[in-house]
Amino acid sequence: VYAAALRLVGSEGVSGLSVDLLAEESGVSRSTIYRHWPDMGDLVVRAFDDLMHAHVAEDLVRGTDVSAALLAYLRDYARRLNDPSYASALVAILEWSWRDEAFATTHGQMFSDSRSRAATLLRAGRASGELRADLDVSQGVEDVVASFLYRRIVLRRRITDREVEALHARVMTDFGARSPRS
Amino acid sequence: VYAAALRLVGSEGVSGLSVDLLAEESGVSRSTIYRHWPDMGDLVVRAFDDLMHAHVAEDLVRGTDVSAALLAYLRDYARRLNDPSYASALVAILEWSWRDEAFATTHGQMFSDSRSRAATLLRAGRASGELRADLDVSQGVEDVVASFLYRRIVLRRRITDREVEALHARVMTDFGARSPRS
Repeated sequence: VYAAALRLVGSEGVSGLSVDLLAEESGVSRSTIYRHWPDMGDLVVRAFDDLMHAHVAEDLVRGTDVSAALLAYLRDYARRLNDPSYASALVAILEWSWRDEAFATTHGQMFSDSRSRAATLLRAGRASGELRADLDVSQGVEDVVASFLYRRIVLRRRITDREVEALHARVMTDFGARSPRS
Repeated sequence: VYAAALRLVGSEGVSGLSVDLLAEESGVSRSTIYRHWPDMGDLVVRAFDDLMHAHVAEDLVRGTDVSAALLAYLRDYARRLNDPSYASALVAILEWSWRDEAFATTHGQMFSDSRSRAATLLRAGRASGELRADLDVSQGVEDVVASFLYRRIVLRRRITDREVEALHARVMTDFGARSPRS
């Protein structure tokens, strides 16, 4: 149901999503959908949230160093953005959050620092001493995610492996414990 | 008609724009609208383009230094993004470009480097020697515009004067002719 919801949001927009369409696309009955997700906006947020946080900080749990974990994160982030279904669902969700105030609140939770994988990584690196002690996590998350988002969503370009490596190198230079700014 | 089109795109999405609605919102007759803008998607692009490039590089023409021109640009960019009508029209246009391939082409022209005020500024600064000779203009434009776009469109926060000044200082440090990287 989540996958079907995201496909439909990408092709029809959040406002075009209906229980009828969703039942048809997912093969799940309308009554089951109604029972589990009485609110379509809520369903969209859950579906997207599930996709965004699918592999939360696995690398961290295994104790890999922050540089390697950040590279894995950036690769995964680029892979998701390069998927046209993910990109169009993301843009549709952002667009809807600008038109529907109730949806905007839920949307705010999706993109909060406390739920962000990038923020988790940066905090772990700061705690372990691999990243600068004075690193501002919110600013750091922005530096990590904003450029690819702009390239993909606004310029509609695919993110290349080389761009992933270049951003990783740049972030580690700027945020690393041995950075000239620290 | 342009202003009415952008208001409607912000509230209804690009797909919700119709000649009927536009005639009602603008007070211009349907026949006049049809005659001048037979294609609604094209009208949206022209309206937004007009707004985006309204004050192209005036500061440059007057011969101000690049640092001051860049600060003026960033202030104007923040002011536009902070306007909820501009922000929601921008997101609606981005969303539509991900759903409609024909629209995506026109959209690509809107955001091209050759039309970008930020790119014009950076090129002028490179030519005058105020910015680094090895500055990559496309990368520079991204550094200038991506962070505010992310803050405003994704996090839905207003851009503050302090943030404008901080970004200006950061960009001048990174791109300035006396930067350590040059």
